[in-house]
Amino acid sequence: MTQAVRHDSMRARNLELVLGEVSRRGPLTRAALAELTGLTKSTVSKLVGDLLDAGFLAETGPARAGERGRPGVEVVLSGARVASLGLEINVDYLAVCLLDLAREVRFSERRERDNRGSRPEEVLGELQNLAQTALDAAAAHRLTVAGAVLAVSGPVGDGVLFSAPNLGWAGVRVADLLHLPVPVTVDNEANLGALGELWFGAGPADFLFVSGEVGIGAGLVVDSALFRGAHGLAGELGHVVVSPTGPRCRCGAAGCLETYAGQEALLEAAGVASVADLLSALDAGARSATRAAAAAGEALGLALASAVNLLDLDHVVLGGVFAPLFPWLAPAAEGVLAARLGRLRGSVPTLAPSTVGGAAATLGAAGRTVHHVLADPGPFLNRAEAT
Amino acid sequence: MTQAVRHDSMRARNLELVLGEVSRRGPLTRAALAELTGLTKSTVSKLVGDLLDAGFLAETGPARAGERGRPGVEVVLSGARVASLGLEINVDYLAVCLLDLAREVRFSERRERDNRGSRPEEVLGELQNLAQTALDAAAAHRLTVAGAVLAVSGPVGDGVLFSAPNLGWAGVRVADLLHLPVPVTVDNEANLGALGELWFGAGPADFLFVSGEVGIGAGLVVDSALFRGAHGLAGELGHVVVSPTGPRCRCGAAGCLETYAGQEALLEAAGVASVADLLSALDAGARSATRAAAAAGEALGLALASAVNLLDLDHVVLGGVFAPLFPWLAPAAEGVLAARLGRLRGSVPTLAPSTVGGAAATLGAAGRTVHHVLADPGPFLNRAEAT
Repeated sequence: MTQAVRHDSMRARNLELVLGEVSRRGPLTRAALAELTGLTKSTVSKLVGDLLDAGFLAETGPARAGERGRPGVEVVLSGARVASLGLEINVDYLAVCLLDLAREVRFSERRERDNRGSRPEEVLGELQNLAQTALDAAAAHRLTVAGAVLAVSGPVGDGVLFSAPNLGWAGVRVADLLHLPVPVTVDNEANLGALGELWFGAGPADFLFVSGEVGIGAGLVVDSALFRGAHGLAGELGHVVVSPTGPRCRCGAAGCLETYAGQEALLEAAGVASVADLLSALDAGARSATRAAAAAGEALGLALASAVNLLDLDHVVLGGVFAPLFPWLAPAAEGVLAARLGRLRGSVPTLAPSTVGGAAATLGAAGRTVHHVLADPGPFLNRAEAT
Repeated sequence: MTQAVRHDSMRARNLELVLGEVSRRGPLTRAALAELTGLTKSTVSKLVGDLLDAGFLAETGPARAGERGRPGVEVVLSGARVASLGLEINVDYLAVCLLDLAREVRFSERRERDNRGSRPEEVLGELQNLAQTALDAAAAHRLTVAGAVLAVSGPVGDGVLFSAPNLGWAGVRVADLLHLPVPVTVDNEANLGALGELWFGAGPADFLFVSGEVGIGAGLVVDSALFRGAHGLAGELGHVVVSPTGPRCRCGAAGCLETYAGQEALLEAAGVASVADLLSALDAGARSATRAAAAAGEALGLALASAVNLLDLDHVVLGGVFAPLFPWLAPAAEGVLAARLGRLRGSVPTLAPSTVGGAAATLGAAGRTVHHVLADPGPFLNRAEAT
């Protein structure tokens, strides 16, 4: 029994080693894998064989029956068998994406929808339909879905969305309201956006990802991992103080960043009805629009100055609506950062627009399960084998 | 050769294991050590014997020649042989402390001194005299000093103090200006204060330590380790935005926390000349003093609200002058935290005064080397054996 347990845990560790190297480095021969992992060639061959059979790996180049493992043939991650679901509830939309193990998006859909003041049951019912469409797509591709992660626009713990003032929700057990045939985890959209940027963007290993939507959140990535804080509530940049005598915020406080640079404050200041209208007005050089964007950028700079003082950041990535607004927002924010931090730090963090775009949180959500499967493939391998 | 290297690294690991258990758990028998470390009894006996000979461990109870290792005899950390130096340059004082391996303070001195606008060479010259007094005390006690750590009131990297506006220093290579016969490391006083609180106070494993002196800094402890940020500059709470239109700060920005709750702002608002006078005035219930403390507490609450939003903190420890001022500062700060965080988080972090007091940074500085020696005793063990 103890022998079997030891063998199992060694096998799990070795599977993780092999998948980890292929995931990080791309195509590798069995010989290279043996060298990188320190395992014997015969152990590597056995593990690679099992992973090929389970559809976790594929051989590159033309392969013929009986010819597996020819010298020089490389193996890569295969998206043929296992996939994961990324889901997102935001104030203005619902989204889903189906990601395979090779990190290819196999299906995605986004439904624009005003979720302000809506009943959680109703929104989650529609999300469930959307998720089912993705699960149907998975079945059609003969993909086993390993799990789903749901991104929500507010602080989360143990599957409960504590507060999403922009939805009008508080203490909603979102995980219990979503009935899917796969395990569901719930996390904050800014955290998942940060992971989306880390895994699918051009970002470095340490950065603050700022998610500018109706609400403003942030995810801090330190050494390629999320910094979550005591309860997973870290990164509430939207409620950092910009001015204590500022406008009343939906969170109950006053002068939070969101009251200056949140989507609704921005649109109101620019006198337009939508982000699309705001971008048109900015493109046309409309004065009210450029002024509103610069004012939001200034507020963002103030909140980021506090964040940099506390967290010692070198890189800030602006996502959500802040990405398309970057050319108009960033100069004002950079000006404030230079004025407030230049003398004390001697340097100012770089600001860059997200390269992943609006889907960062949905991608990060789907990517989390892929990451999880690659780090501990055993259970999913057995499940895949059993189907 | 490879065998010898392997043997050495195994021995180093085993020494760390044994010292770590005794350091964490207190007195232990050799049998208990064997059980806890998974090493054989004979390996433990050999390691304990070496550590007793080197003066790193001592046996409890009466010991007679030739009777070492009797069953039931416990070993504890011994402060007989190795010690470390904690040094601090603050705006108003210089301090030193000599800490032995059993974490007993064997010597300490604090010299009140106005270091504002002083030449670094002069201040470091006086600190060197102070350090020499402590080194003489170490020699008198036959203690080998393993190293010195210097706490300075500003952001530090690679032995350089980037900026200490309250001293009037910028880009000072403090490590190069201090000539001691032991290795010197330089770190920020708030970081070291946080470690002092962690090791010598009653704090939990996760907290923000706020150091209120002429400047205000903070050290974030996550899972019993410091969070340092990209360049070790994290925790600059003193320059978090309280109000963007507030008073001009020495850092070049406006409305930083320091301009409201720094020692000088506090004394000026209260109309007194020293912290001692302020405490007397508060004890006597003087209106200007209680008002000044409450206003500083309110500003502190605003900066901490931003910190809690970003870092998700449950516990904040107020150190430096904020510890004695706690009864007058804390209610206002707690009021702001409750008003700004209550609805979004559902809970408010606890504020508590430091239990270590004004020596937290000096103690943390000395403790860092002790921590280092216990984690890797080999080099110091050999040095102690050689003397």
